[in-house]
Formats: sequence, C-alpha cells, structure tokens
Amino acid sequence: MKSYNIALAGATGVVGRKMIEVLEERNIPIDNFYPLASSRSAGSKITVNDREFTVEELDENSFDRPIDFALFSAGGDVSLKFVPIAARSGAIVIDNSSAFRMDPNVPLVVPEVNAAAALQHNGIIANPNCSTIQAVVALKPIYDLFGIKRIVYTTFQSVSGSGLKGIKDLERGIQGEPNDFYPKPIAYNAIPHIDVFMDEGYTKEELKMVNETRKIFSDDSIGITATCVRIPVLYSHSESINVETAKPFDMQAVMEALRDAEGVVVVDDVSIPSYPTPLEAEGTDLVYVGRVRRDLSAENALNLWCVADNVRKGAATNAVQIAECLIAASELAAN
Amino acid sequence: MKSYNIALAGATGVVGRKMIEVLEERNIPIDNFYPLASSRSAGSKITVNDREFTVEELDENSFDRPIDFALFSAGGDVSLKFVPIAARSGAIVIDNSSAFRMDPNVPLVVPEVNAAAALQHNGIIANPNCSTIQAVVALKPIYDLFGIKRIVYTTFQSVSGSGLKGIKDLERGIQGEPNDFYPKPIAYNAIPHIDVFMDEGYTKEELKMVNETRKIFSDDSIGITATCVRIPVLYSHSESINVETAKPFDMQAVMEALRDAEGVVVVDDVSIPSYPTPLEAEGTDLVYVGRVRRDLSAENALNLWCVADNVRKGAATNAVQIAECLIAASELAAN
Repeated sequence: MKSYNIALAGATGVVGRKMIEVLEERNIPIDNFYPLASSRSAGSKITVNDREFTVEELDENSFDRPIDFALFSAGGDVSLKFVPIAARSGAIVIDNSSAFRMDPNVPLVVPEVNAAAALQHNGIIANPNCSTIQAVVALKPIYDLFGIKRIVYTTFQSVSGSGLKGIKDLERGIQGEPNDFYPKPIAYNAIPHIDVFMDEGYTKEELKMVNETRKIFSDDSIGITATCVRIPVLYSHSESINVETAKPFDMQAVMEALRDAEGVVVVDDVSIPSYPTPLEAEGTDLVYVGRVRRDLSAENALNLWCVADNVRKGAATNAVQIAECLIAASELAAN
Repeated sequence: MKSYNIALAGATGVVGRKMIEVLEERNIPIDNFYPLASSRSAGSKITVNDREFTVEELDENSFDRPIDFALFSAGGDVSLKFVPIAARSGAIVIDNSSAFRMDPNVPLVVPEVNAAAALQHNGIIANPNCSTIQAVVALKPIYDLFGIKRIVYTTFQSVSGSGLKGIKDLERGIQGEPNDFYPKPIAYNAIPHIDVFMDEGYTKEELKMVNETRKIFSDDSIGITATCVRIPVLYSHSESINVETAKPFDMQAVMEALRDAEGVVVVDDVSIPSYPTPLEAEGTDLVYVGRVRRDLSAENALNLWCVADNVRKGAATNAVQIAECLIAASELAAN
C-alpha cells in the first residue's frame, strides 16, 4: 500500500489536533508529515504514529515539496491565501474553512452523501460547515426516498465549534469570570448568533446551512431556513430539524431508511425512552438521530433530532474521510 | 381599595416563592394570606409585605374560610385533588399546573392575549405552560394582523422549569457529580425530553405547546408542531419560532406591531448586533423578541427568537396578572 505525504495547516488548533488523531485511528498510511501553523506555534513538537514532527510556520514555500494531501483548518483568511498555493504545487487540498465552499469549481463533500463529487476536484475539495455535515448525513436517506421540499433547521451548537477560545470562554464563565470571546456570556446562556450577520437578518452560519445543504444535495429547489444558536455545551452539536418531503412517506419506511443509512445511528425508543444527547455523541464519528416523528401541522412533514461530534464528524473525521475516498479511488485506478 | 384573602398552594416551591415576590412588587392589596405546602414545609415562616406567615399543610380543610384567590403551583396531582375543593369553597382558583388547562370549562389565560377569557371563569382559571405563555405573547401581534397558518416551535428551556430539583441537578453536574433528577446529565448537555412521552413520539411538553396555543388563540385551525429541549441555563426559556402567516405581510408592519405589542420588547438590531438572551431576561416580566426575519423557504413565513423568564412571566407573573384582571373587572363593576 502506498503511503502519503500529508501537510496539515492549523496543526495546533482544536480541529487540527483532532485531524491528527483521526489520521492515526483510521490508519492513513503516512510517509512524510508536515504540521504547519502560525509563527506562534512554530517549533513545537507533534507526535503522529509515534513519530515526532516539528511544527513549521506556514508560508508561501510550505508546499514546495511533494505533498499528496494538504489539510487546512486554520480559518478562512489563511485558506484564501495559502490554499491556492498548495493546490498549484500539486497537493490535493481538503479545506475545512468556508473560503471555497460555494466556489462552483470546488466540490463540497460529505462522503456518506456525495462521495463521487470528491473525484471531480480541480485540486481543492471543501469540507462543509459542521452543522451542515451532520444534517445532510441524517437527511440523505429521507431525501433519496421521498425528496425534500423544505427544511427548518434549529441548531444547538457547542463552544468547541469556535475552537479553543470558545472552550475557554465557557470554562471561564462557569468560574464566574466575564466573557472575553463571545459577544455575550455563554455560561448558563444561549446566544442566537454564530459567525457574522449578513443580509436579511441571517447570520453567516445560518446561510452556510442553507447554501451548503443545497450544494451537497445538488438541488437548489429545496427551501431551507435556519436559526443557529450557541449553547453551553463543550462538544457535539444538536439540531432540531423539521422536514417537508416532496412525496408522501410512511414512518416505518423513514425509520428503516435511517437505520440502514451509512454513518447514521438511530437512538429512538420512547418506551425507554432513548434519544441522543451531545455528551453521548462526543468522541464518536457517527451521526445520531432520534425523536423522529410525523409532524401533522403540514403535509408530508416530520421532525427529527440529530447529534454529532462537531470537531470529529463535523470537521476532522469528514476531512479524513474525503482523503480516504481519493485514496480508495486512486488505488482502484492503479490496480 | 379592597384587600383580598389569598391562599397559595405550593408556597415554598420555586414558582410559589416567586408568586409572593410578584404579589409584593405589583402591590396586590392583601388582607389575609395563607401559604400552603406539603407537611414537610408546614411550620416554616414566610414573609409577605413585612408580615410573617406560617406555612400550613395543604389539606381538605385549607379552604374552609373566606378566600378570594387561591393560587396553585404544587404540581398536577395536588391541583387535581385540591383545586376543585378550593373552587367549591368559593375561591377563584388560578392554577399553574396542567391539570385543568384543556378543560373546556376552564379559561386558559395570558392577559396580553386573551384577558377577556378570564372573566368567563367558573371558579377555575388555568395558567398556561411557561413555554406557551411567552410564545403567544410574541405571536399575538402577528396573529392579529396576518393570521397564523402554521408554527414550528423549538425550545431551549432552563432547568428552573423543573423547580429546585432541576436547578440542583445542573449545579451538581457542573461540580462533576452525576445527575440524580434528569434522565441524562444536564451540565454541558442538551436533553430533548421535557415531561413524559405521549402518543406519536411527542412529549407532553410539546403537546402542551400545540394544544394550549390553539386554545389561547381560540383557533384550532393553526397547524403547530414543537420540539422541546432542556439546556444548561438556570432561568429563562428561549424559543426559535418559525411562523407561516395566513395572509402576506411586510416585515416593517411585523416589526411595528411587535414594538407596539403589550408585554413585548423588541431587541433586534443586526448592526450592533443586538438580540435577547436568557441571562438578560432573567428577573423581568417581559417577553423579549429578536432575530425577526423573513423566511424565504415558504410563502408568508418568518423566523423569530423569543426569550422570557420562565419562573416570572412563564408562571408567577402571569398568574398574578390574571388576578389583576379579575380585580380590575370587579372594581369596575363595583363603581
């Protein structure tokens, strides 16, 4: 089996560190590994598969060497500047920022939903927004069977979605200290404001869910609205999703499709009762779905509750899964 | 001005204590005051308007004396047993439990929405569910102008909605101790399960929001669905509400109607940005509305975010406001 040269921009962040763990767990064969970060973190040591690597400062020359995959998770500005450089140098970039997600030349990929799109890349593949990833994994079996006319998303997002600064702001708040990262205290609070405000009163996070869901399903006919809320949870996003399907459905078929769906675990037995919660999803790579029930307030409608570890399936794991798709395809082609 | 004999069943609970504060704050003229509770709390002292009262054990004879208003906030089972006794004795009962809310002979009242219904009572008036109260106050101006075809409720509910046991379970969880009240840990978690599970996969809390909203608006044609979630917040419930109106609206008219609405404060300026959060609503009697925006995923649809102190406006204050309606009406009739 071939091994790969992998560069990781943002190697010391919450998602970057998790990408290393996931690369190890999933036994991605690594030849050379280049952890890249800002000058502040350069020189620190990172261990991957028991081999120690020194973090290098990310700059224009970071990609002047044979690199198979360049994983980026260092924010939109860093990606805008360095992703094109990495792609021009010949690396396949898997970018976790929002910088290129809506670029028509860049596939936006959740392997359980649209793995084939990854193979159409022109050097850059975008990893979707964390909230979008878990939603489309849960909705895929419903979309395939019945089509989707409209989605109302309401999210309950953890502070790790903001990286270390979010985690520390919650920890400080719990100790009674004032917030110094979020616009309001996050401890014992709920903040309906994630990412910046855009047009028509929506936040960028909300518009990401609208636009990315459509792009991943390649279906601009889906009506989508979203309300994204930060809550005092450390890891895992939860989502209340109201769906109107295009065709009539029966609940048994929906449940069977969810149980059979790749990457989905159904936790839904009201007799126990069982349903997923963010604490239980933490540390896993799956999307947990529960509270699935018909909504009689509209024709062909249902509600569901969907939970996943935002740092893993919502970011690091999904990015590594994209690399796995490409590796599998290239090995298939080589044989 | 006349003063009133007031009995309070559940005087030592979270809502009961708050009812006493609200009675004092709103200068309800009190002649005799009878704090009632379980045998466990009987004998303890409670101060109202600088007068000390001894908590009595609630029993069949508690209402054998002239009582104008009997406020109940001691749970559904206590209400089922003692509310009819209190009403038969001649007291007007304002019951905070769900026991009588859907009884067609019992008005379900939110004074900003349907104050007139309070005057149609037959001895019992029900105080709605906390989540429903704040929602209908926010929706009333929209309902009046444009009608409402469908509502999708998603709630972010605080632990004080479960009383002292909920508050203590969150506090213990934050200290790293295991949960001993909620079915899952509530610290750093979100639990999509409030009250017991009923038919079709809905919880009783969710069905309360559906049925009580229709009853308060006297409109069974409204399609309503709800997902109710407990989050690690101490006080104030937040709600993401998606509304489809019956008639077309323009956003300016919606905003003006919300700004003019009784009991509503609009906190909604994306240029700051401003929006309400539960910590800021705590300790107030108003319903805060923000994040109001058109939803283009359906015809005549909008989203809003609504926050209120669940122990005050969602329970104690609303009950005292109902008493105020009756007092005002009887004083008007007496003049």
